[in-house]
Amino acid sequence: MKTIAFEEARSVVMAALERAGVPQPHAVLQADLLLEAELRGRASHGLLRLNRIIERIHNGVADPLATGDHRWRGSFLDVDGKRGLGPVVACAALDVLIERARANGIAIGAIRNNNHLGMLAWYADRIARRGLILIALCNSEALVHPWGGRKAMIGTNPIAIGVPTADQPFVLDMATSLVSMGQIHNYANQERPLPPGWALDADGNPTTDAAAAKRGSIAPFGAAKGYALGLAFEVLIGTITGSEVGVDVQGTLDSEAPCNKGDVFIVIDSAADSATARTTAQRISRYLDSIRASGLEGGDQVQVPGDRALAMRRTLMESGLPIEDDVWEKIKERASHGSHSSAQGMQHE
Amino acid sequence: MKTIAFEEARSVVMAALERAGVPQPHAVLQADLLLEAELRGRASHGLLRLNRIIERIHNGVADPLATGDHRWRGSFLDVDGKRGLGPVVACAALDVLIERARANGIAIGAIRNNNHLGMLAWYADRIARRGLILIALCNSEALVHPWGGRKAMIGTNPIAIGVPTADQPFVLDMATSLVSMGQIHNYANQERPLPPGWALDADGNPTTDAAAAKRGSIAPFGAAKGYALGLAFEVLIGTITGSEVGVDVQGTLDSEAPCNKGDVFIVIDSAADSATARTTAQRISRYLDSIRASGLEGGDQVQVPGDRALAMRRTLMESGLPIEDDVWEKIKERASHGSHSSAQGMQHE
Repeated sequence: MKTIAFEEARSVVMAALERAGVPQPHAVLQADLLLEAELRGRASHGLLRLNRIIERIHNGVADPLATGDHRWRGSFLDVDGKRGLGPVVACAALDVLIERARANGIAIGAIRNNNHLGMLAWYADRIARRGLILIALCNSEALVHPWGGRKAMIGTNPIAIGVPTADQPFVLDMATSLVSMGQIHNYANQERPLPPGWALDADGNPTTDAAAAKRGSIAPFGAAKGYALGLAFEVLIGTITGSEVGVDVQGTLDSEAPCNKGDVFIVIDSAADSATARTTAQRISRYLDSIRASGLEGGDQVQVPGDRALAMRRTLMESGLPIEDDVWEKIKERASHGSHSSAQGMQHE
Repeated sequence: MKTIAFEEARSVVMAALERAGVPQPHAVLQADLLLEAELRGRASHGLLRLNRIIERIHNGVADPLATGDHRWRGSFLDVDGKRGLGPVVACAALDVLIERARANGIAIGAIRNNNHLGMLAWYADRIARRGLILIALCNSEALVHPWGGRKAMIGTNPIAIGVPTADQPFVLDMATSLVSMGQIHNYANQERPLPPGWALDADGNPTTDAAAAKRGSIAPFGAAKGYALGLAFEVLIGTITGSEVGVDVQGTLDSEAPCNKGDVFIVIDSAADSATARTTAQRISRYLDSIRASGLEGGDQVQVPGDRALAMRRTLMESGLPIEDDVWEKIKERASHGSHSSAQGMQHE
């Protein structure tokens, strides 16, 4: 593990992206997204992903120039992402969704044919800092088994919710799987047994063998309810975007397949007038403070979503980012040579 | 327990509502909602609720005539419910939200000053049968403790998602609490111990004593993630509607307090054209069928949200509704005398 200063990491990531043919304004978005994941302690969505993104560009399944084709119907924006980079297509859509939401109170973006969005918290935070609410959903390759089912049929289908407050934005970002496939891989790499209930093997039997779980499926969070929620998101996204669902989804975990999942952004401007908005934001901030203070007297604060990530962010901005040696070496190589070598992508999700 | 034929139950409920001053078209909605909950096996949201609804009318905190004041901003409908009955105000809003969603692709209703919505599945099913998607959220009096917290600070905050398919609509309807306060009351009435992890007592200590749990708080579903989701819904609803949040929410469990929670309806028309909509609906239906068939060979079907409720509905339409004796006697009394006696409301949620 190396510790890399934020600005150094940023300049090397930018160089690697630009060397792969990503125009500077697009590279800024992609780099910012990956670095923000590192800063928030979400290495699984951080620089680890860069190698596959560049491989996908080389393989023609990610187009570094594309920003997506837009077609409006009132407050409904239909986006063909044209195989663009996830955050590039998403931000092009969000820029116009924000305008439409300010005019109409709400706007929705239905995005297909776009690459991986990465960490959704990044989008939720951006929109909330501009005074708007964001609900973001996307599906992904099937990794999660239905409750009572035996194989992976549902994506890890995260939801992010960003809401402006009088303080930092409130940002929820969670997958509907119990754990990530990245965590399963970590257990496998360390040859540690999984906690019971995390995963099934390829035959659909419960397993604590992480290597077997990698070929099997992971549990939904929250048992039957979490399963129902993740499935509802898959149905919702598939219907709104017309994208693929379930085992037909490809291109979120590999370097070769075009990405055929869907992304949904709902942007809401609830502020009828600024005085009301301010009163409401203050009420929400007071509420969140009362939650934080509701633990054992003298004990730890109760966590509000995003608190831990922001504390981590402050620390890592000072101390530098902890990056795995092999991940960092690969990025530096990309930055200096732009190697086309087919380094094996790491199957994290 | 009595078994009451559906039509008999309906006519007695209608008589009780009309005797309480509810105009016939409003009574139809309220009765249909309560009966649908019974049919779907959700007695906690069924006829049990009628007595409190009528008490709230007598106490002036529910106005049987009100349908709500509407103010549009593009696709954003601001609704002051004027203390109307939950389904009456909601349906008046949904009727115009559907029109706006058909024109603009999406519309949102932000409702405050409305009474309890009851079972959200009823709304999701109605909208999906009209070819549109519904996402419905509402908050409620604080019953759920934060993860790591010690007292009730979050509502049971349900979400419903209704999506049209080529078959029956897909309908998710779930609270973000692990169990309902109604279930805690059932355990208390039967003097059975609660399963561990369900609840805290009034001092914030874990308890399996259902009587102690009634004065305490219930757990969120799905541990930290479910807590985060329920809290995000509370923040989202409070911000969109300007309604109260947390311990300041009143009027969802009693017969006296004006109801100050919020309701949010997002209606989406994703169908750019009917051929695409049909193809998408068929893809979703095939996907759901593949989920159902994904269990053990020769074993039970995997459940898709709504399946069990619809099977129950078919059975109970034939066999009649199982209704608690005291609940049925009270409704019959309301239907014949419209008694103003302050029968004790049952604290179910």
